[in-house]
Amino acid sequence: MSKNLSRREIITRAVYAVGGAATFASVQACGSSAATTTTPSTGPTPKDFPYEQHLPAGYQLDPAAVKEPAYHAYYEADGGCCHGSYSALMKHLAATAGAPFDQLPADFGRFGAGGIAGYGSICGSILGGVLVINQIVSNPAARGAMMTDLLRWYEGASFPSYTPATVDAAEAQKPPTLDFSAGNLVNLQTTPGSHLCHASVSGWCAARGVAANSPDKLARCSRLTADVAAKVAEMINTYLASTATPKTYTAAALDSTSATCLGCHPKTSTTRPVASGMSCAPCHADKVPPNVHP
Amino acid sequence: MSKNLSRREIITRAVYAVGGAATFASVQACGSSAATTTTPSTGPTPKDFPYEQHLPAGYQLDPAAVKEPAYHAYYEADGGCCHGSYSALMKHLAATAGAPFDQLPADFGRFGAGGIAGYGSICGSILGGVLVINQIVSNPAARGAMMTDLLRWYEGASFPSYTPATVDAAEAQKPPTLDFSAGNLVNLQTTPGSHLCHASVSGWCAARGVAANSPDKLARCSRLTADVAAKVAEMINTYLASTATPKTYTAAALDSTSATCLGCHPKTSTTRPVASGMSCAPCHADKVPPNVHP
Repeated sequence: MSKNLSRREIITRAVYAVGGAATFASVQACGSSAATTTTPSTGPTPKDFPYEQHLPAGYQLDPAAVKEPAYHAYYEADGGCCHGSYSALMKHLAATAGAPFDQLPADFGRFGAGGIAGYGSICGSILGGVLVINQIVSNPAARGAMMTDLLRWYEGASFPSYTPATVDAAEAQKPPTLDFSAGNLVNLQTTPGSHLCHASVSGWCAARGVAANSPDKLARCSRLTADVAAKVAEMINTYLASTATPKTYTAAALDSTSATCLGCHPKTSTTRPVASGMSCAPCHADKVPPNVHP
Repeated sequence: MSKNLSRREIITRAVYAVGGAATFASVQACGSSAATTTTPSTGPTPKDFPYEQHLPAGYQLDPAAVKEPAYHAYYEADGGCCHGSYSALMKHLAATAGAPFDQLPADFGRFGAGGIAGYGSICGSILGGVLVINQIVSNPAARGAMMTDLLRWYEGASFPSYTPATVDAAEAQKPPTLDFSAGNLVNLQTTPGSHLCHASVSGWCAARGVAANSPDKLARCSRLTADVAAKVAEMINTYLASTATPKTYTAAALDSTSATCLGCHPKTSTTRPVASGMSCAPCHADKVPPNVHP
């Protein structure tokens, strides 16, 4: 699926240079004064979707390089978690792979903060990652597996784990009360259990004894955003490195407790069907072992 | 914020036509054979985000016109609810407002089916709508209010309510067992309560006694997709009709039961903070009246 963009780019640029020169020369020679700014239409455009086809053979992102930008973008005005992961990944793609990533607005993820406009739905850092995966992956089955894998990984991961190279100016102005130093970070970690911002943020804040609008919450979620952005980069790299045709990706299996639930509540049930790929326990603790099923 | 695109378009097209003709004439006259395809760079591009600035003054979508395409797009291979609402709205915008909507892939929403890759997260038809609102609205406060309003509306609306003009070929091939005729549709309606696909689909299917992977589920969700797409068009119209500077939008208030919950569980609490804009009852029935609070 991948094409060699270096080659393609060279050709595109050469055609453009020749074409531009020819047009300029002819306009000069013929004395026409019509002034139109033109751009080549031979390169990839946002409509040539998905964008895996425009990546050079062997292309890989640098997961370490997206962490710090993701962390700082979180603290921008009208920023947040979705903007953090989305903009860091898209800017990295634009800088390292060019078109059409550099023709898209890196600001597209600002809406997703706090589980979409503070609603507490899907964690914005995941949503930003999902949107970037969707830009690239051409195989629908692999795309679905990657998104499922990202959601499951998030639910079971310990956050936060990134320590920024430089504390953001906004964080320094209103510093957290907890100790976010690299050595102590492990003591601040919890596993969200759910991919919903509402549960992830409320649970962490309650466990740490801090408010959900505190500087501590911001310090936690900005670092989590860096963690998620790097994970998305790693996942895309795994997919791009697939040698299968089309490229494949395998998601982690559903946890065993939830798998047991679906044994009696499959999609095919006409009495209690369950349409879900997520873990059951976080929202239905009363219905999973060791509790009694009602 | 809005510019008159008709005027702008006329100018752009005129410049392009003149430029194109001049280049062609000069190339012909001077005998150059360099063949470059050029596109005008004077019109709006996807990077000129958000796109409200490119809409003609007084622009409005036609909510009725997006319903049928949204319903049919749901049934496409690798289609679904998010693709249904997103592609119907984006194609309508491309056809009626032009650039940059016509420079973006209408296929971007295919990932969102079944609450993102079947995971049961946010209903894809809402997510598709959220992504379209995000393309347009430039005022972050209004953008957030619109997304909140869409999510709250969905949770309390009765679905499905649209009756397609033509039954989709895929639906006709595997028809639902329930009576989806216009006269009987009211008897098939339920209120999702939650904006999550998992709860919305599982709840409706259980209430109707059908499987979550049945033709009945498809018939329900395809019509719901049309309902949501039209609602999003109406909301964007309300926003665009705002005469305030910047344009404003007011979301419906949180339901009174949930508002009571947040009285004791505000974001500012350091013991049980709740970060959420959604309704509490659907997931915490054991904690809201008339049940006893644990």
